[in-house]
Amino acid sequence: MRIALDAMGGDYTPKNTTEGAVLALKEYADIKKLFLVGDDIAIRNELKQLNCHDPRIEIFHAAEVVNMADSAAKAVRTKRDASINRAIDLVKNGSADAMVSAGHTGAAVAASVLKLRTLKGIGRPAIACLLPTAVKGKVFVLIDAGANPNSTPENLLQFGIMGSVFAEHVLGYKKPSVALMSIGEEDMKGNDITKEAFKLLKNSDLNFRGNIEGHDLFENSADVVVCDGFTGNVMLKTSEAIAHAIFSWLKQELFKTPILKLGARLAKGAFKAIRDKTNYEEYGGMPLLGVNGTCIIAHGGSTPLAIKNAIRAAVESIKHEINPHILLEAQAYNDKFVTSPTQVQ
Amino acid sequence: MRIALDAMGGDYTPKNTTEGAVLALKEYADIKKLFLVGDDIAIRNELKQLNCHDPRIEIFHAAEVVNMADSAAKAVRTKRDASINRAIDLVKNGSADAMVSAGHTGAAVAASVLKLRTLKGIGRPAIACLLPTAVKGKVFVLIDAGANPNSTPENLLQFGIMGSVFAEHVLGYKKPSVALMSIGEEDMKGNDITKEAFKLLKNSDLNFRGNIEGHDLFENSADVVVCDGFTGNVMLKTSEAIAHAIFSWLKQELFKTPILKLGARLAKGAFKAIRDKTNYEEYGGMPLLGVNGTCIIAHGGSTPLAIKNAIRAAVESIKHEINPHILLEAQAYNDKFVTSPTQVQ
Repeated sequence: MRIALDAMGGDYTPKNTTEGAVLALKEYADIKKLFLVGDDIAIRNELKQLNCHDPRIEIFHAAEVVNMADSAAKAVRTKRDASINRAIDLVKNGSADAMVSAGHTGAAVAASVLKLRTLKGIGRPAIACLLPTAVKGKVFVLIDAGANPNSTPENLLQFGIMGSVFAEHVLGYKKPSVALMSIGEEDMKGNDITKEAFKLLKNSDLNFRGNIEGHDLFENSADVVVCDGFTGNVMLKTSEAIAHAIFSWLKQELFKTPILKLGARLAKGAFKAIRDKTNYEEYGGMPLLGVNGTCIIAHGGSTPLAIKNAIRAAVESIKHEINPHILLEAQAYNDKFVTSPTQVQ
Repeated sequence: MRIALDAMGGDYTPKNTTEGAVLALKEYADIKKLFLVGDDIAIRNELKQLNCHDPRIEIFHAAEVVNMADSAAKAVRTKRDASINRAIDLVKNGSADAMVSAGHTGAAVAASVLKLRTLKGIGRPAIACLLPTAVKGKVFVLIDAGANPNSTPENLLQFGIMGSVFAEHVLGYKKPSVALMSIGEEDMKGNDITKEAFKLLKNSDLNFRGNIEGHDLFENSADVVVCDGFTGNVMLKTSEAIAHAIFSWLKQELFKTPILKLGARLAKGAFKAIRDKTNYEEYGGMPLLGVNGTCIIAHGGSTPLAIKNAIRAAVESIKHEINPHILLEAQAYNDKFVTSPTQVQ
């Protein structure tokens, strides 16, 4: 398995990316080659400091970096030698089986679509994000977590198909339940887009259980929760913000008196367990499903551990043959439900 | 001040609504009359049990109730004698200055728009919701929290104007900062609707600070955060779910060993402080801004305390003359920025 890592994508690069790559190589024997894409000298320095001489590493020089202020489309068109573009080029020309980036999400999506194209039967790709539930070890898939700020009902249906494939083949859930994110459980609740998507999902062969509200997300969730990328991204970041705010407010309160402080010290283990549960690092990267190649999007602030887990996500996506399964399911849907093949594109 | 309370709206009625009304009457001397709208006998029973003989209470009989499964539009058209419709009728015919309901939000919005109409210069009303920040006692306004699942850029601009009026006149914030909920801080990030709304907000006289992401909501927020009602409702419910999940997971963890249990007992005060901060009951109801009358939407699961605080929100909205101020600001915007008065309707 050959992976291309955008070594310059993220807030702390190439330090965290290089460290994460080295961690991944130690753990995953499946990786036969790992391209570190980015500034040759800077990456070489990091490897030297880590005293890493793993022959599976190959530095692939890229002179430019996409910044958060760049527009996605412009970054792809004008910064051809940016690390993120070069990493995707390696997938496109067959040198790598997957690419991982903690950089500009919009640029990663735009470059993937432009260079790799979407899979047959899939109009737009979507980011699948894993979130915790009340049941220990059990997660659910939120799709789309931010690839498409604007989505059509057909897009949402396809997100459901892709999320279901991911839940079945990577997470091992049998006949995964699929729900549509909305503002009420009743069938007719939603906006114009979700109301149309509801009909498509209901008529499909998916194990569709209807609308789901925020209230039920973490304690009575479906295996796959479908939404447009604007809503998904806002939800995801708001959830992170709430979890962070609660812990930081709690910390302030717990420092107010010696008794509270003592209580906090004794209860430390419980806080840590919850922090781990809500910590994105554990889940690694988020696959961009629906493009003709394997792309994993990692958190901008990724630590080495998060990068390592994002690389693990790439390994798993390839191992479980996600793309062939998506192709099959999209084809099956089109054959059965779409009379004119141009309707779902 | 005369308030009409939908005594049958909510999960525990007319018990919680009646108890909340009695609490409010004890606390707010401004209330000269409080209509309890709903089933005459059931409400009379509750008042008897509470041993309440306050002469300011008037029971207004309504034979029907809007259920959560009813469609909003149908509820208004076919259940004319529903408590929620009758409460709004009392505002319409001038018998009451405000109405409060913990019932079907969609029905409350639809009935308010149909019966009271929107204020001049406002196309659609919006629900303003108060959320906590890191700074003790300081809250921010999320608008729209769920009145409109579909919003235009012009709607979002008007939500900004109304939210700003509310933050200034009810919360007492000087020249409130207004931000647009989006998926990136940069100006060009967003979906098609928010990108257009960004331009309108930037060109207005509001203290617009640009896009805001979920990450910054609770610790570096604006005074007013604008979004469409679908996104706002999903955000709000997801936030509640996350807070609830964290506390319930923490509780499970804290019961695992005697030392954790002891720690939890000592740290109890801190947990309570955070619970209070994230407890919707404290904030009372959410005003539906932009209709020609005062309407307060309360949480479906409202406790008597939450109902009391929702009634307080009604008292404050009237006292601070929110509607006259919204009319003035909408007019000022139209005079300055809209050449043809039909553009903003």
